[in-house]
Amino acid sequence: MADDWRPVRLALFGVGQVGTMLGLALRRGGVAREIRVADPNPATLAASRARGLQPDGEIDPEAIECDADVIVLAAPGPQIIELVERLGPGLGPGQLLIDTGSAKGPVVEAMRRLPDHVHAIGGHPMAGTEVPGPAGARPEALADAPFALTPVRDDPVALARGQAFARLLGARPVVVSAADHDRVVARTSHLPHISAYALAAVAAQAGDRATIEELTGTGLQGATRLAASDPEMVAAFLSANRAEVKTALKEFRGALGDLERALDEGPDQLTSSLADAASQASRRVSP
Amino acid sequence: MADDWRPVRLALFGVGQVGTMLGLALRRGGVAREIRVADPNPATLAASRARGLQPDGEIDPEAIECDADVIVLAAPGPQIIELVERLGPGLGPGQLLIDTGSAKGPVVEAMRRLPDHVHAIGGHPMAGTEVPGPAGARPEALADAPFALTPVRDDPVALARGQAFARLLGARPVVVSAADHDRVVARTSHLPHISAYALAAVAAQAGDRATIEELTGTGLQGATRLAASDPEMVAAFLSANRAEVKTALKEFRGALGDLERALDEGPDQLTSSLADAASQASRRVSP
Repeated sequence: MADDWRPVRLALFGVGQVGTMLGLALRRGGVAREIRVADPNPATLAASRARGLQPDGEIDPEAIECDADVIVLAAPGPQIIELVERLGPGLGPGQLLIDTGSAKGPVVEAMRRLPDHVHAIGGHPMAGTEVPGPAGARPEALADAPFALTPVRDDPVALARGQAFARLLGARPVVVSAADHDRVVARTSHLPHISAYALAAVAAQAGDRATIEELTGTGLQGATRLAASDPEMVAAFLSANRAEVKTALKEFRGALGDLERALDEGPDQLTSSLADAASQASRRVSP
Repeated sequence: MADDWRPVRLALFGVGQVGTMLGLALRRGGVAREIRVADPNPATLAASRARGLQPDGEIDPEAIECDADVIVLAAPGPQIIELVERLGPGLGPGQLLIDTGSAKGPVVEAMRRLPDHVHAIGGHPMAGTEVPGPAGARPEALADAPFALTPVRDDPVALARGQAFARLLGARPVVVSAADHDRVVARTSHLPHISAYALAAVAAQAGDRATIEELTGTGLQGATRLAASDPEMVAAFLSANRAEVKTALKEFRGALGDLERALDEGPDQLTSSLADAASQASRRVSP
């Protein structure tokens, strides 16, 4: 690619779990020679430092321009849009604007309104953990993790830079439209989160506390692990992808209803229905 | 306890995953000096041997009497009842009859019809794995695992023997009524199984196969792990506990509906609802 772009200066807008993870991974890889950070929350900045990300400088979180090679918007969903609209118009063709939100439709829509010379792409590194905030940042989780890239327009430069950025993090770039991303992720990530919280709530009311604790095996622990996530983070991505999440919930209720009907029809029918669901799963999502 | 009962001769009716696991654990602990096995399926007998359980002899699966110290009914649900009714009446006061099914109401009911001198107790070792059959037997999973014991009637001898048996396996005896067991387990084990299969089915239909596989992270894998279980085994325990499972499903739909309403009300309400569910969970079922 005829492009002398080199991503050595990184600006992280947001140093929560994801921003801190990306910063640590780029430090570890020796890629970023300069990492500057911006976060409106001093406690988050302090927690990110405590987790080991020592920035080369701080940026005013209200800044309207930024001269880094890669500007990473790792803020919660609604703030990403605001950052795209504030910082995006001032960026030059040598830079890359990328976000890390887990719902891509609205971000890509906002990026599409930027001037044509701005290289922007939606990004979603799929390597979160259940420990909230910077303390939960695990840069090693990026190794071979999917890093979704959702193109904004026909812009091979943005795409190439996005792919290079994902690979520098040790992740595996997956190019997908924002619509496909949001539809799939609603079902492979967002729905499992809702389900985990609902399961935890039902299990907690099954009887007296001692009996529940005594009779809880590893099955429930695995099935509800996602309910240990940061509720604010989960609420943010569920809300950002609300339409797809609601459709996924409808499908989920349908699948539960199918299994309940099979349960009513008897063990043979139920075995067959469970095997059907599992065979789809083992072919496609390998549980 | 004024009882010279010593559980050195074990009869295993059923050497699928659970029976094989128990046999291996008792061998390992040097407890059972004699293990005899019965299974109507020659392939299961062979698989159990292949997994490492070398029995001291085989019992006719159609036997109407058994002189072992502990008679363990580790067969699928409906067969347990039949075995209780066939073998139970001939047992003497020096023996213990125990089963391993994961729904206890019908088993305990059948045991209650046995003559008073027969010491019987419902049992449920909660240490299964997702690998079907004897190949999935992991005796080490019994270490400190809950082993539910559901008394049949006021019979301190059966209870003491059941507790001793659970401890000899390395497990943790949990004495609970059959009704409480079935209600709690419907929510801490059976519902999570159904949910895992339904999640797997929804995820598998989220889009084209390659995109789904590329965008599947560890979250879904954990949430659907239980869907890799043996469908026949899962169908058997869901069917055996059908009434409670249906009530649990109703509660689950209610909890999902609550979260969906919160999603519609906005991120703040959703954060609060998720935090509520999670706080119940962390207090009670530690996801």
